[in-house]
Amino acid sequence: MTIPTQVKIVEVGPRDGLQNEVAVPLEAKVALVNALAKSGLTYIETGAFVSPKWVPQMADSAAVFANIERLPTTTYAALTPNLQGFEAAIAAGVDEVAVFAAASEAFSQKNINCSIAESLARFAPVIAAARQANIRVRGYVSCVLGCPYQGHVEISQVAAVAEQLWQLGCYEISLGDTIGVGTPLHAQQMLAAVAERVPMQHLALHFHNTYGQALANIASCLPMGISTFDSAVAGLGGCPYAKGASGNLATEDLVYMLEGMGITTGINLNQLVEAGAAICQHLNHGPRSQVALAELAKQETK
Amino acid sequence: MTIPTQVKIVEVGPRDGLQNEVAVPLEAKVALVNALAKSGLTYIETGAFVSPKWVPQMADSAAVFANIERLPTTTYAALTPNLQGFEAAIAAGVDEVAVFAAASEAFSQKNINCSIAESLARFAPVIAAARQANIRVRGYVSCVLGCPYQGHVEISQVAAVAEQLWQLGCYEISLGDTIGVGTPLHAQQMLAAVAERVPMQHLALHFHNTYGQALANIASCLPMGISTFDSAVAGLGGCPYAKGASGNLATEDLVYMLEGMGITTGINLNQLVEAGAAICQHLNHGPRSQVALAELAKQETK
Repeated sequence: MTIPTQVKIVEVGPRDGLQNEVAVPLEAKVALVNALAKSGLTYIETGAFVSPKWVPQMADSAAVFANIERLPTTTYAALTPNLQGFEAAIAAGVDEVAVFAAASEAFSQKNINCSIAESLARFAPVIAAARQANIRVRGYVSCVLGCPYQGHVEISQVAAVAEQLWQLGCYEISLGDTIGVGTPLHAQQMLAAVAERVPMQHLALHFHNTYGQALANIASCLPMGISTFDSAVAGLGGCPYAKGASGNLATEDLVYMLEGMGITTGINLNQLVEAGAAICQHLNHGPRSQVALAELAKQETK
Repeated sequence: MTIPTQVKIVEVGPRDGLQNEVAVPLEAKVALVNALAKSGLTYIETGAFVSPKWVPQMADSAAVFANIERLPTTTYAALTPNLQGFEAAIAAGVDEVAVFAAASEAFSQKNINCSIAESLARFAPVIAAARQANIRVRGYVSCVLGCPYQGHVEISQVAAVAEQLWQLGCYEISLGDTIGVGTPLHAQQMLAAVAERVPMQHLALHFHNTYGQALANIASCLPMGISTFDSAVAGLGGCPYAKGASGNLATEDLVYMLEGMGITTGINLNQLVEAGAAICQHLNHGPRSQVALAELAKQETK
C-alpha cells in the first residue's frame, strides 16, 4: 500500500480542546473558529450541545454558531450526546453532529454513567433524527489503545464498537487514543482489526500526544490507507487524566509532517500557528505544539 | 524488512544536552551520569574536551570522568574535535571518542570555522591516534535533513560525508537532524542513500524534535533495519537556533515507543524519568519529554 496524496483533517480544538481548558470568552471562541477556517481547515468541530452543568466550557455553543462567519468550504460540526442536544444543535444551524462511545466498559461507566450498550442505544434516536434531517453523524470511539481505568482494551472490542456505530448509521468512525498511550505496532494492529469491519475510507485516527507518540502512530498507519485525522490547534485540551501533560495532537505538527511528506492538506501553516497563539493568550499556558514553539521562537529571534 | 528486536540507545544528554543549557554544578553532572547508567543505559556521551572559551558548560569534563562510578556494562564517551582534546580525553580515561562533521558547507563554516574537507582533514590524526590507543571513534554528521543557514542539504552530500568518516576509520556514523526539520519520507530517503555507502548496522539516527517529528521519523526508518538511536534524557539541550523550542529527542519518549513495539532496550523507564527530573532542578525549565510530563503528573495526582 502507499500513502495517500490528500488527507482530511478534522480540527477538534474548539470542542475537544476548549472543553478541557479554562473557560474563554465567546469572542475568543468565535475568532478562533473564524481563523481556523481561514487557515484552510475544512472541518471544524465547533462546539457541543451538552449539559452546562457537566461541561460549562461549552455552554455558549449556540452563541458561537450564531456569531461565526460561515465559509462555504468548511463544515461546522458539534457533539450531540442525546436527542435534546441534537435538537439544540439543529436549531443553532450545525452542518453535522457527532456522538461519542467508548471501547472500554470501565470508561463508559465512569465518563457517561452507562454501559457501552446503553450508550449506543441512546445514540440510535439521535442518528435516526439526524438521518431524517439529512444531517450526517460522525461517531467517536474512545480508549481504542488503552483506558485510564481498566488499562488494557481488547482490539476486538474496539472493532465491535466501531462496527456498531457504523451500522447505526455513522458515516465516519473516529478512533480515539484518549490517554495517548499507544505505540506504532499497537496502532497498526488496532486499525487493521477495525478496517475489517468498517471500510478504511470511513475511519479516522484521533490520537493524543500524552506520551509523545501521536505522530509516530499516524506515520506508521499512513501506509495502511487511512487518510482522515483529528487534531487540535496548539494541542488544546491537555490531558484530563494527567494535569500538565499533553492531550490532543497539535494540528500544526500534523500539518507539518503531512506537507513534508508531499501530502496536500490545503492549510496555511503560518495562519494556523497564529490562530493557536491567539487562543493561548486566553489560557494559562502557551501552545502545546513543537512547530508553533519553533516558529514563534524564530519570529522572536528575528 | 522487519523491525529489530533489540536496539542500542546512545544517551547524549550529559554532552549534547548540557552544552546547550545553563552551566550546572559538577556534582549534578556526576549524579546525572551515574543515574543514567543505573537506569540501564549502556552508552553515555559523558562530556567534551573542547575549548572552555567556546563551550564553558563542558569545561569540567575531566572532573566528571574522575568522579563518576563506572559501571562495567556502560561505555562512557566524549567528544574530541582535535588532537589536543583527544589527548585530554585519554588522560581522563574515556572509553570512546567522537568527532563532528557537517553535511552542510554553510554550517561547517559558521559552526567550526572551516570547510567540510578541512574538518575531515583535522579529524584524520585524531582517528589515527585513537586507533593506535585502541580507542573506537564515533563520527557525527550534522544537518542531514536541513541546515539553519543554507536550508536544503543534498542527500548525496550527506552520504558523501558519512562515507568519508567511515573510510577515515569511524566505527559508527550518527546522522543528525540538527534543527529537527525532517519528516518521515525525507528521513527514509536520506537513510537509504547513506546505507548504500556505509553498512546499516554501522549507522545511527540522531533526530531532534524541534518540529515534533523525531519519533515519527524513527518509526518510519525502523523497518529499514536501523537499530541505533541517539537521544537525551528530558530532551536536554533545547534548540540553539530557536530559543524555547525543543532540541534533542527525549530518551524517555524513545524508550516508551520502542518498548511498546516489543523492542528490548534494557532501560528502566521510571529511573530514567527520575534522572531527567533531577537534572532539570538545576535548569530553568522542566523535562522536555512527554512521557516524563505524563508520568510526573500521574505521580502528583496520586
